[in-house]
Amino acid sequence: MHNLIQKKVDKIKEEIIIDRRDFHKYPEIGWTEFRTASLVARRLEELGFQVLVGKEVMNSDKRMGLIDKEILKEHYIRAKKQGADTYYLEKVKYGFTGVVGILKCGDGPVIGLRFDIDALEVLESKDTEHFPKKEGFRSLNEGIMHACAHDGHIAIGIGIAKILSEMKQFFNGTIKLIFQPAEEGVRGAKSMAVSGILDDLDFILSSHIGMVKDGSNKIYSNVQELLATSKFDAHFTGISTHAGASPEKGKNVMLAVATAILNLNSIPRHSKGQTRINVGKLTAGSGRNVIPSDAVMMVETRGSTSELNNYMKEHAIRIIKSSADMYDLKLSIKEMGGAESAVSDEYLINKLKDAVNKINNVEVDDTNINFGGSEDFTYMMKRVQNNGGKAIYFIIGSDIKADHHNGKFDFIEDDLITAVKVYSMLIAELLHKK
Amino acid sequence: MHNLIQKKVDKIKEEIIIDRRDFHKYPEIGWTEFRTASLVARRLEELGFQVLVGKEVMNSDKRMGLIDKEILKEHYIRAKKQGADTYYLEKVKYGFTGVVGILKCGDGPVIGLRFDIDALEVLESKDTEHFPKKEGFRSLNEGIMHACAHDGHIAIGIGIAKILSEMKQFFNGTIKLIFQPAEEGVRGAKSMAVSGILDDLDFILSSHIGMVKDGSNKIYSNVQELLATSKFDAHFTGISTHAGASPEKGKNVMLAVATAILNLNSIPRHSKGQTRINVGKLTAGSGRNVIPSDAVMMVETRGSTSELNNYMKEHAIRIIKSSADMYDLKLSIKEMGGAESAVSDEYLINKLKDAVNKINNVEVDDTNINFGGSEDFTYMMKRVQNNGGKAIYFIIGSDIKADHHNGKFDFIEDDLITAVKVYSMLIAELLHKK
Amino acid sequence: MHNLIQKKVDKIKEEIIIDRRDFHKYPEIGWTEFRTASLVARRLEELGFQVLVGKEVMNSDKRMGLIDKEILKEHYIRAKKQGADTYYLEKVKYGFTGVVGILKCGDGPVIGLRFDIDALEVLESKDTEHFPKKEGFRSLNEGIMHACAHDGHIAIGIGIAKILSEMKQFFNGTIKLIFQPAEEGVRGAKSMAVSGILDDLDFILSSHIGMVKDGSNKIYSNVQELLATSKFDAHFTGISTHAGASPEKGKNVMLAVATAILNLNSIPRHSKGQTRINVGKLTAGSGRNVIPSDAVMMVETRGSTSELNNYMKEHAIRIIKSSADMYDLKLSIKEMGGAESAVSDEYLINKLKDAVNKINNVEVDDTNINFGGSEDFTYMMKRVQNNGGKAIYFIIGSDIKADHHNGKFDFIEDDLITAVKVYSMLIAELLHKK
Amino acid sequence: MHNLIQKKVDKIKEEIIIDRRDFHKYPEIGWTEFRTASLVARRLEELGFQVLVGKEVMNSDKRMGLIDKEILKEHYIRAKKQGADTYYLEKVKYGFTGVVGILKCGDGPVIGLRFDIDALEVLESKDTEHFPKKEGFRSLNEGIMHACAHDGHIAIGIGIAKILSEMKQFFNGTIKLIFQPAEEGVRGAKSMAVSGILDDLDFILSSHIGMVKDGSNKIYSNVQELLATSKFDAHFTGISTHAGASPEKGKNVMLAVATAILNLNSIPRHSKGQTRINVGKLTAGSGRNVIPSDAVMMVETRGSTSELNNYMKEHAIRIIKSSADMYDLKLSIKEMGGAESAVSDEYLINKLKDAVNKINNVEVDDTNINFGGSEDFTYMMKRVQNNGGKAIYFIIGSDIKADHHNGKFDFIEDDLITAVKVYSMLIAELLHKK
Repeated sequence: MHNLIQKKVDKIKEEIIIDRRDFHKYPEIGWTEFRTASLVARRLEELGFQVLVGKEVMNSDKRMGLIDKEILKEHYIRAKKQGADTYYLEKVKYGFTGVVGILKCGDGPVIGLRFDIDALEVLESKDTEHFPKKEGFRSLNEGIMHACAHDGHIAIGIGIAKILSEMKQFFNGTIKLIFQPAEEGVRGAKSMAVSGILDDLDFILSSHIGMVKDGSNKIYSNVQELLATSKFDAHFTGISTHAGASPEKGKNVMLAVATAILNLNSIPRHSKGQTRINVGKLTAGSGRNVIPSDAVMMVETRGSTSELNNYMKEHAIRIIKSSADMYDLKLSIKEMGGAESAVSDEYLINKLKDAVNKINNVEVDDTNINFGGSEDFTYMMKRVQNNGGKAIYFIIGSDIKADHHNGKFDFIEDDLITAVKVYSMLIAELLHKK
Repeated sequence: MHNLIQKKVDKIKEEIIIDRRDFHKYPEIGWTEFRTASLVARRLEELGFQVLVGKEVMNSDKRMGLIDKEILKEHYIRAKKQGADTYYLEKVKYGFTGVVGILKCGDGPVIGLRFDIDALEVLESKDTEHFPKKEGFRSLNEGIMHACAHDGHIAIGIGIAKILSEMKQFFNGTIKLIFQPAEEGVRGAKSMAVSGILDDLDFILSSHIGMVKDGSNKIYSNVQELLATSKFDAHFTGISTHAGASPEKGKNVMLAVATAILNLNSIPRHSKGQTRINVGKLTAGSGRNVIPSDAVMMVETRGSTSELNNYMKEHAIRIIKSSADMYDLKLSIKEMGGAESAVSDEYLINKLKDAVNKINNVEVDDTNINFGGSEDFTYMMKRVQNNGGKAIYFIIGSDIKADHHNGKFDFIEDDLITAVKVYSMLIAELLHKK
Repeated sequence: MHNLIQKKVDKIKEEIIIDRRDFHKYPEIGWTEFRTASLVARRLEELGFQVLVGKEVMNSDKRMGLIDKEILKEHYIRAKKQGADTYYLEKVKYGFTGVVGILKCGDGPVIGLRFDIDALEVLESKDTEHFPKKEGFRSLNEGIMHACAHDGHIAIGIGIAKILSEMKQFFNGTIKLIFQPAEEGVRGAKSMAVSGILDDLDFILSSHIGMVKDGSNKIYSNVQELLATSKFDAHFTGISTHAGASPEKGKNVMLAVATAILNLNSIPRHSKGQTRINVGKLTAGSGRNVIPSDAVMMVETRGSTSELNNYMKEHAIRIIKSSADMYDLKLSIKEMGGAESAVSDEYLINKLKDAVNKINNVEVDDTNINFGGSEDFTYMMKRVQNNGGKAIYFIIGSDIKADHHNGKFDFIEDDLITAVKVYSMLIAELLHKK
Repeated sequence: MHNLIQKKVDKIKEEIIIDRRDFHKYPEIGWTEFRTASLVARRLEELGFQVLVGKEVMNSDKRMGLIDKEILKEHYIRAKKQGADTYYLEKVKYGFTGVVGILKCGDGPVIGLRFDIDALEVLESKDTEHFPKKEGFRSLNEGIMHACAHDGHIAIGIGIAKILSEMKQFFNGTIKLIFQPAEEGVRGAKSMAVSGILDDLDFILSSHIGMVKDGSNKIYSNVQELLATSKFDAHFTGISTHAGASPEKGKNVMLAVATAILNLNSIPRHSKGQTRINVGKLTAGSGRNVIPSDAVMMVETRGSTSELNNYMKEHAIRIIKSSADMYDLKLSIKEMGGAESAVSDEYLINKLKDAVNKINNVEVDDTNINFGGSEDFTYMMKRVQNNGGKAIYFIIGSDIKADHHNGKFDFIEDDLITAVKVYSMLIAELLHKK
């Protein structure tokens, strides 16, 4: 079967690349992936998958860091113009851009594969040496760019869908292809994780292209330091008054935020590992001679484990609340993103190695990859692991051209083919009929 | 002579009101009074005054809180469209909107009269009961409004110019009519005060319409609590870095501003009188996961005397500098406005009373008027007083319709006539030929 | 009658001075006036007064800033050795050192006179030019001194008691002589004021010797700026832990007190008058390498009115509570002293003037005396005034030799005689039989 | 030779124990080891060592955390009474309690062995089950105790001196026995390290008894996490003034220390490893109503490497300086202790293993021992390593009875014998004649 899979993937190589370039050309930021999601849904439907979208696969209230209705609307209109699927567009509008395609092939195990689909607010390079520019698929949405390879992730997902639909008869089990919005800012996974769609999974798999220089033809199995993180905004509301005439009548948010900032940064270091805190952005007050009555503070905590991040978050919340109480202010704290720490299961790492070993010209590299950032796929990993399932997150190596999130970022398209092979082979390992 | 003055003023009543309405219709904010200043200069020239404008009467470097070149340009273009005098427009462009008209009538004392000419960023009421709306002279520059009676002040100044030019032969001395930009935010007086144009004055006079409810036909001679104030912006520059990956590489402005805010508010109270401090507005940082490297803080100090304000300002500057040093930041402090405390001279208060007593239906009220704010005319008062001259600041009562700076603010136009009479009569007291 | 009073007072002049010198020789600090109070009680009893002491005239719980039992005990033992009255000593022990003597002379008005009796922790000068040293009545209790004239106040009180007991038949009313402990630190008045003993008073009178240089033979009737004040200690309790091994296990009081200090000093200035805040003393932590778990902070607020002081106190308490909450600490706030602002009644000021006018060689000076500090007699004034009675606080001028609270402080003993005359005469004005 | 060494050591077993008990009975805290040092010097001299003491082996200025002269004097007097050697006592007085004994046995390598000699301010248990109590050698200096096994370290040092003096002819090289004061608080090593006495060393060795439960008969070779640390006191001096009358005249240290505390705790976390900061103790101010003018803050930084500790220290110093500048205060920072991070050389670890393998009933355990604290022997290690020499720090296991620094701490005396064998054998490995 291994050779069959490889042959079939090699046959759709060009289609995979065409898909990737199409998504690259029409990038959409988190919660606005209207064109992307609607087209993915359409394609899955065409390939015979049962398709669930929007509220069917997302918890509306858990969409963290959702953006303004007005902006959602603008992006919706653009998506319409740029060829979104009209049927699915209506289902995903207002920031419901998650899509799940389900393929049942018997009553064996249930596997989820997760692909993140959002782009970044990055201006894509116009340098003629920049491959997408040279090949004519540079972003048409100026200031938005697939600078973190999610265009590739989508293309991989559709590629796999094609292989699976053709090879259905070889597998015994169910496959769920999960296309997740708003991974940037670690905002989107939670709303899908808590919707229930993961709760019958025995395995969940995901991966990222790139991360390492000169990585083409390598699969990195040992990803460490997926940092747990919490991201939230604190809104303080006081009472403004003329600073000269009656300062005592005000309730001054500026003093509360200053107090919060110093104390947030003073949360005791933790002996069990690394922790982080940042007040990254603050806007407060309206005019020089007015006691300031409104402030918004953007906060982020991290920890090398979820336990450490929770330690930071709990302290942070208490400090912010006490700072508001100190000046008798109203306070609203809004969750804007988050991720857990998570560790891949040994069982799946071994299966991954088995799968990769059967692919020509690709090898597993088990060097310790220090991720050093956060990934909200961890929510899904924990969900599945807590239910007794197994999870893995790995890296698909590629000779990347610049750092992730840089306007010159690019990867090697051939590595998409490798990725489709790896996933297909791994599914074969897990769901093969005896 | 008193009756002659009153008759002459009554005769130009309508002209004064027409002027006021014209300036009301075309309000211009501080440093952009291009149309206003150019037309004032033209009128003074026509009335036989020697006219000095722009750099001739202003120190370029002392224009505090000057606004962006781009914005100056936009306003200049609008002024051109709205009928500015083309000759003088060129002389006042780039924020040189001070004008002085000089009339020599012998070698007697030199008197300065100061009129402030700028409007506010206030949206004028569209209520049909609002007098300017009803009478068709509501602001054409949406979002800008003469909501502090400076339109009246300008009209008074031109009215006086007319009377003086007609009655020149009765006076022995020199009159300088000083039209000052950017009084709002106490930004404009200093650049005129230090230019030298006040240095031959024996007397300087100014006044404000309104301030007190139901004040028409009263002149308030006893203005107290002209608070000294300093207004400045502090710009902090550090180094940004990824808050998760390498927090130690950053230089965090957020911690410095938080430290500054708490300590600024902690400057010890002063046993000699009231002091004030406010950090009215703060913007800091760029993104949640980036150690913030830029912050701008808008600060204001006040004191019931210049000494007390200086005490506050010195402490504030030292605190801000130390806060920046604490995190090895670059700091730039930019003066944005300021005023002194000042007290009217008893001699001129008495002369004012003498003058008013000769006017029909107007009386002096020497109730203590607690100004409770700041006026940059105080720079001019101190300048003249320090040179041995005398100064006065008084209130021209009017039945105002709403608080100053409110979109429904309005005053009684008849009170402009009273004002022209008061000034003319006061000049007559000071410069009459024996 | 005026001459009779003056003669009688002149006759007991030496006794008054002997009393003063005796109390000066055996000074006792607040709440430990065991010898003083017991002897005062004995003398009042001998003069025919009804005597109430200790719990009969004090609310046990309202004794602010009470000192340690161990220290009370030491002072009690010393008092016993130094000739305390054994009967009354038992009644005043454990810090119940208030004494009230009551004399009923008919059913006329009820007058209270208040005398404060405590000394200070000041080392008395050994300079042979220092009058008490020269005359042999320097403090025997080393480190404690009557450096604020309360020895004089006690002697005045006993002098008046003598005059009243001899002249009872001339008066129609009741006189209560109130000897109050612990005025220093404004701690003692409240416990007597709330005990109920003032609640039948029509008038309450008190005074202070000194305050003004070269004041002998003058009575100052116009005392201003009796500042309202609150004094309290805040005890924070956290959890200590090794600062290197497990900082996260601690609850760090140091961060809470730092936060409290900055924010206490940042309480907004008040437009209605002067306010003050001070964190005068702080001790926190136990060792360099231990997360600190205990801190005590000594705080004081003031205001030129009770309203302003309450504003400060309320803000201060909220800030301290929020600071403790911020680090999940236990907090105990202990009231250590307090005073109100108060104003003398015009009626009594006039009566005082009438009284003084009848005394030879003494005159009323109604210069504004800026007290600039706090006096807990104000609690009594407010209590009586709130019940519809009248109150007065005045200054008995004296040529003082050094500042109050200085080791060289001394006053002119002849002025005690004047004081006894003034009070006696004032009582005569208020209680004379028609 | 190995058997010879073991036999010789076994023969002096009782002498070693007698020594240990004598030092245990007369414990002396850091910088006051007058009896201890003088007796050690005397013994070394008697055994034929060249003896250097006090200023000959210490840099006077680098004695960190030196204590008050008055206290030094008291301890000196006690040492005299308790049998100090009178000759050497004069040489070590005023806190010069370092001693070095030198034995030359040919021109081979130079080895240093370091023994720390100070006790702790801990009250020794009076429990009859506590071995020193039971055996009659409980501390005679109440409140001071050898609760960290340094009594054992001294006894080991003298035991080795005996063995070496007897076996001199077997060795080719020089041995320096270094007895160091004030290890507690990491204060004493630096002054010896910089004196030059280490600069000819090829090897330096030191060890600690205990650290691990149930460790008897084991030698732990793999000590990790010797944390670098800096300990210093910051003294702030301002100007005091009456908090009510003239707060503006003060320079308030309380605000500066509060600012310093919050910002010290806010020093950014470091991505390269663990860091620590603690303000462990603070005393500030004198009285409730006085603007506080004096404060002392006890600070400690740590880092898992010297680089990280330096990062913390540099930031800490800048923050403290800026806090003082902010309020125009005088500042004095006094170094009170410090240690480096350090790593044992593989060469010596192997030699240690070789040596131990030749001893009966003792074995090397190379479990990772997380020291988790600081040791100022690291100064000596770095000094020797920087000069091209090699260093080792190891643990002599013992069945300790309670935690170090606890009043019930005790170790097994037999393990002293093991220690003398280990050192002697290790010297034999390093200096044996070929």
